[in-house]
Amino acid sequence: MCRWLAYTGSPILLTDVLYTPVHSLIDQSLHSKLGAETTNGDGFGVGWYGAAAVPGVFRSTEPAWNDQNLHELAGHVTSPLFFAHIRAAIGSSVQQTNCHPFRCDRWLWMHNGYIGGFATIKRDLVLAIDPSLFPEIKGQTDTEVLFYLALTFGLRDDPPDAVARAIGFVEARGREHGIEYPFQGTIATSDGESLWAFRYSSEGKSRSLFFTRDVRRLREEYPGREILRQVSDDARLVVSEPIGDLPGAWVEVPEASYGVVGRGREQ
Amino acid sequence: MCRWLAYTGSPILLTDVLYTPVHSLIDQSLHSKLGAETTNGDGFGVGWYGAAAVPGVFRSTEPAWNDQNLHELAGHVTSPLFFAHIRAAIGSSVQQTNCHPFRCDRWLWMHNGYIGGFATIKRDLVLAIDPSLFPEIKGQTDTEVLFYLALTFGLRDDPPDAVARAIGFVEARGREHGIEYPFQGTIATSDGESLWAFRYSSEGKSRSLFFTRDVRRLREEYPGREILRQVSDDARLVVSEPIGDLPGAWVEVPEASYGVVGRGREQ
Amino acid sequence: MCRWLAYTGSPILLTDVLYTPVHSLIDQSLHSKLGAETTNGDGFGVGWYGAAAVPGVFRSTEPAWNDQNLHELAGHVTSPLFFAHIRAAIGSSVQQTNCHPFRCDRWLWMHNGYIGGFATIKRDLVLAIDPSLFPEIKGQTDTEVLFYLALTFGLRDDPPDAVARAIGFVEARGREHGIEYPFQGTIATSDGESLWAFRYSSEGKSRSLFFTRDVRRLREEYPGREILRQVSDDARLVVSEPIGDLPGAWVEVPEASYGVVGRGREQ
Amino acid sequence: MCRWLAYTGSPILLTDVLYTPVHSLIDQSLHSKLGAETTNGDGFGVGWYGAAAVPGVFRSTEPAWNDQNLHELAGHVTSPLFFAHIRAAIGSSVQQTNCHPFRCDRWLWMHNGYIGGFATIKRDLVLAIDPSLFPEIKGQTDTEVLFYLALTFGLRDDPPDAVARAIGFVEARGREHGIEYPFQGTIATSDGESLWAFRYSSEGKSRSLFFTRDVRRLREEYPGREILRQVSDDARLVVSEPIGDLPGAWVEVPEASYGVVGRGREQ
Repeated sequence: MCRWLAYTGSPILLTDVLYTPVHSLIDQSLHSKLGAETTNGDGFGVGWYGAAAVPGVFRSTEPAWNDQNLHELAGHVTSPLFFAHIRAAIGSSVQQTNCHPFRCDRWLWMHNGYIGGFATIKRDLVLAIDPSLFPEIKGQTDTEVLFYLALTFGLRDDPPDAVARAIGFVEARGREHGIEYPFQGTIATSDGESLWAFRYSSEGKSRSLFFTRDVRRLREEYPGREILRQVSDDARLVVSEPIGDLPGAWVEVPEASYGVVGRGREQ
Repeated sequence: MCRWLAYTGSPILLTDVLYTPVHSLIDQSLHSKLGAETTNGDGFGVGWYGAAAVPGVFRSTEPAWNDQNLHELAGHVTSPLFFAHIRAAIGSSVQQTNCHPFRCDRWLWMHNGYIGGFATIKRDLVLAIDPSLFPEIKGQTDTEVLFYLALTFGLRDDPPDAVARAIGFVEARGREHGIEYPFQGTIATSDGESLWAFRYSSEGKSRSLFFTRDVRRLREEYPGREILRQVSDDARLVVSEPIGDLPGAWVEVPEASYGVVGRGREQ
Repeated sequence: MCRWLAYTGSPILLTDVLYTPVHSLIDQSLHSKLGAETTNGDGFGVGWYGAAAVPGVFRSTEPAWNDQNLHELAGHVTSPLFFAHIRAAIGSSVQQTNCHPFRCDRWLWMHNGYIGGFATIKRDLVLAIDPSLFPEIKGQTDTEVLFYLALTFGLRDDPPDAVARAIGFVEARGREHGIEYPFQGTIATSDGESLWAFRYSSEGKSRSLFFTRDVRRLREEYPGREILRQVSDDARLVVSEPIGDLPGAWVEVPEASYGVVGRGREQ
Repeated sequence: MCRWLAYTGSPILLTDVLYTPVHSLIDQSLHSKLGAETTNGDGFGVGWYGAAAVPGVFRSTEPAWNDQNLHELAGHVTSPLFFAHIRAAIGSSVQQTNCHPFRCDRWLWMHNGYIGGFATIKRDLVLAIDPSLFPEIKGQTDTEVLFYLALTFGLRDDPPDAVARAIGFVEARGREHGIEYPFQGTIATSDGESLWAFRYSSEGKSRSLFFTRDVRRLREEYPGREILRQVSDDARLVVSEPIGDLPGAWVEVPEASYGVVGRGREQ
């Protein structure tokens, strides 16, 4: 059911976040500890903001742990804001168009979890998507449909409201069809400036989500860590499960809540 | 814009049809003579009827000309009725779920051509598909949508009528949106007993389609051909463009028409 | 470090062995219990004997658990003798030419384990391969080099002797270079008639290997099992770790030994 | 038999060279005009120098014309020196380890052409490679073997001499085996500072090779071209066949010669 990671802060080489930490996301592709599955080997994706007008997206159907091109890309690309996602498919095909993150213009979107009874309510959900966005749907996943629902409900203007409305719409359609727990998961989205992270489930037992504590405090506690000296004061990581080996570095996102970080803002 | 081939007759090793002929389908993947494109390198697919309840389908995103697994499969599988398709993508992703043939239960379906202005009318077409079939749509192609429209319109009961209604529906929706030529192409479909082939275009200039003349006559003309002695009297090949080097072997399917061949029937 | 399975007996649909059993090989690709790794997701391969002069080989770099083409092939191909292998790569690339089983004419070969210090002694090993076989090496693996060494040492004439000599040669070269345990693993090979299985390691702690007990006895113990009624009296499975849920069905191959089964023979 | 391109000059977005020109390398993957084959669809590779100690290498077995990840990478990576290669395989497998460019530390290497009778002389060539380099060979291609021969013969110290010796060695071994024309092709190599390009064939009819004329002159002739204003005075492209539509922009590299360009040097 996937694991993901999002970074915002001073520009950093992707490999320093994706490969270097002890229990890195790449390691989690084989040995996830907190995920619904141990193995997340059904493809992966990276989305990063750079000099171009839209973020770059690199997605592959290979398991992340052995993908040579991901290793190369991560070793040569720096970014102040990027997403990474490893996938454990539940039903839909292993193909690039089903890999996260999804992109629409400047927006990236990724998800760990699922829409309950998706086959049953997919048609209703798809019909609610703005017809102008309909041709943009490229894959089969619940996550992509949720993304276009959120865009339909105003993601560009008010992300927390749009995500709440999209999930609410999913829950309403699900319950009409007798689905007990229509939504489960954590979501990250960004416009290249701010990064929003959501944790929610109809059941009230949501997938895990953590973010890093203030970098200035971490530096004091772990003065020997080179990486903490490199990154800016406002650097943040949001992750499905902690990477690295610093016990005091992580704060869990509470149930049914969201947070936003980015250039100068935090909430 | 793709090339395809369908065989019905006595069981034959796939390689004898796919690889052995001089201008074989595999050769056409690199050097098509009559196709809209010379190269058909955006994946391929084979569907074959055998002992199992549903036909087997093997699809890949690799170009057919160099695919080792296709070569192996074709050298070890025999079938009395099979489809093969090589793809030149126009817009949709190169992924297995976009490769022909498509399958629903006993039915196979493949297509060379396109729905004009597909992005514009896709939503209207998808909405017309029977909701019970909606979750079966796995890819992004116009061909797959047309397949589920034909199934919605009764493909299982009366294939020529259902295909005519599906294409008619596409043309009606297309013209509502000002699309001059909404449909172009050739289609093959089968239930494992009979094989239907269609040639039609809104423009009246359809993609090429040929079938083989009666095997008994061909044997008389080309007594030295081993393959003609192997196959049954009712064997037929239907192809986008002739394979092999027997000039008198092929008959062109007329514009805006269809044919059906199979166990004991012909039309 | 891989898991494998080999079947000989009356012709059987591959899926009945590969997918149907409770702890099937496909399941082991995600959840191996006895393997050096839990996940065997770095490609897979199937080799099967049929009507053709050489066995068919289907190999892919995708994890087996989600490969649609393997699922199709297994559901449509029957064989009286076939190999299946799932890979956990250790060092060499994830590419088809590194996937087992390897083939040379009528011979198939697969392996679970490794040659210790392979990078150090690879050149010595490759030089010992018959120059006429040298161009046949297609991949990078220790397993393939061992196969061509065994062929060089007479695999076609006396498999147990040739395998012993090949492993002995590896051990000699390894010890020259100070490698403590130069060989580890289990091997299966076949000429389409007999099936040889080997278990050996320089260390004396070899990878696990099991074979099924006599089918007639199993039928008596488990009269309700349909599959046991289908297969012939001489049917045998050899596996890295037991599949299915019949506790008395499996016998462990002893350390440093081999067995041979096949048409009318057993040892 | 492949097409390639190498750029050196002021840092430039890869897409401006790979995708934007009229007859771009990506276009040549489908429609090569001067190549031995029209289609170069058996994988591709890009190697680029950046801030990291070694150049990045991105290789794929997909045809370049439809590869979404190449499109993304090219749109987000800038480099002052990069290689790109599209492959038409002749015999060896379509796998990443057979895709150009090849890399060893700071060195990149790519080739259009072949070693004649490679299967016959491969063993002799491989044996001549420095044993310390032997384990670095990852694929099956003649090009990679030639690269390690050139490294063995001193590529790091004197590239023209080492390449001449490596080709001379190939020709000597080939002629011992009665091969009339043992070498054919063009080669590019770089250490990240300079770029060497070679054109040679035993036959005296070498694959085509071109480089761009002096940028200052081109700017005078084509004052309206934005790209010519962007790049530095010393920018050079070396290509298998001209890209773009500026007739006076290209100079053919003479038979049996080489050139070197790079930071401040030209020959």
